[in-house]
Amino acid sequence: MTFIVTVDVALFTLQENRLSVGLIRRPKEPFLGTWALPGGYIHPQEDANAHHAAARILQQKTGVISPYLEEFGTVSGGGRDPRGWSLSVIYFALVPPSVLVGGVELFAVDALPPLSFDHADIITQVVARIRSKASYSSLPMHLCAEEFTIPELHGVYQSIMGVPLAMAGFRRKLDDLDAIEAITGAIRPTGKSRPAQLYRIKPEFEKVLSVRERGF
Amino acid sequence: MTFIVTVDVALFTLQENRLSVGLIRRPKEPFLGTWALPGGYIHPQEDANAHHAAARILQQKTGVISPYLEEFGTVSGGGRDPRGWSLSVIYFALVPPSVLVGGVELFAVDALPPLSFDHADIITQVVARIRSKASYSSLPMHLCAEEFTIPELHGVYQSIMGVPLAMAGFRRKLDDLDAIEAITGAIRPTGKSRPAQLYRIKPEFEKVLSVRERGF
Repeated sequence: MTFIVTVDVALFTLQENRLSVGLIRRPKEPFLGTWALPGGYIHPQEDANAHHAAARILQQKTGVISPYLEEFGTVSGGGRDPRGWSLSVIYFALVPPSVLVGGVELFAVDALPPLSFDHADIITQVVARIRSKASYSSLPMHLCAEEFTIPELHGVYQSIMGVPLAMAGFRRKLDDLDAIEAITGAIRPTGKSRPAQLYRIKPEFEKVLSVRERGF
Repeated sequence: MTFIVTVDVALFTLQENRLSVGLIRRPKEPFLGTWALPGGYIHPQEDANAHHAAARILQQKTGVISPYLEEFGTVSGGGRDPRGWSLSVIYFALVPPSVLVGGVELFAVDALPPLSFDHADIITQVVARIRSKASYSSLPMHLCAEEFTIPELHGVYQSIMGVPLAMAGFRRKLDDLDAIEAITGAIRPTGKSRPAQLYRIKPEFEKVLSVRERGF
């Protein structure tokens, strides 16, 4: 009647414009020494809920605190862990490369090494979710540095979505999202006559997404 | 280190054009006799995964087999169940009223009775997800009878979304979704000169959604 319950966190960043995931080598059996998502057990005495467990495990295993941390869903069954029937709640985090402190090794999501458990499958599914959400939300903004220019943000969206995006349409959709604000007096020289204005995510969208409406 | 792990299923249908949820009275403590979502424990010996557990529990507690069954996410923590720290994987199902066999009592989602645990909160969150997904997907089609007319489907979308939808735009978006097919030779008299063509969900969209693209 009992079974294994864990939390695993897929931590994403951009490396050379490629969406990349942070992996660690398993410090114990099963899959000792094999690459894996950072994960661990929920500690009911310590974790207010599964989301808190994910934040704790991410920080303990990788040193990263990610303001944006979203539940992807669960994976479960008898075939995914040699120790027996298991259920894992999967979370994903998006951070700029600057916050990574060496606790993980980065791999482009289209060039993954052999992975433990069903983690390759999980990463594939989470990446599909991220690409889909990128198309209508502020999600990719969490991959940017704290201060960024519009052309930089445009580049991030293009990297995630894998398609060129016309700048005029991109700016209009950014206006719809209303998730960033210009930083007063903060500009960056561009080598051209006009320096670039710097922006940041609005505080109210650091932990939740801004989503564009569509539909019937 | 151990805690309670359960699955709960929010079963929705339309009753008098109102989105309604199927509840049962708790047969035991805690919350004996109080309304609740059908739920139960995962049985690792019997359930291939949590999704199978949800389908089994839904059928055992309500008699309903729902082709469409989607994971909403987890709720967890120390405060939601008087027995101790618990995690529940929440699923939702959408069915036409005709498949209900008396195993549940229906309540309009805006007129719920007092509920067990955090189930009122869960229903509120799932309803928001359903209304959001209705705006860009085939989700509401699962509330229709097996055979339906376009005006009937239009009425279902309007009931879920709570707004009037112009028929021309609605038909165009239905074309985008490409999730229904006309049933050859199946028509229904309408009292007007032209009978109405009957449609059904395409088999490939009985368990997964068709989704309209939007975005950058």
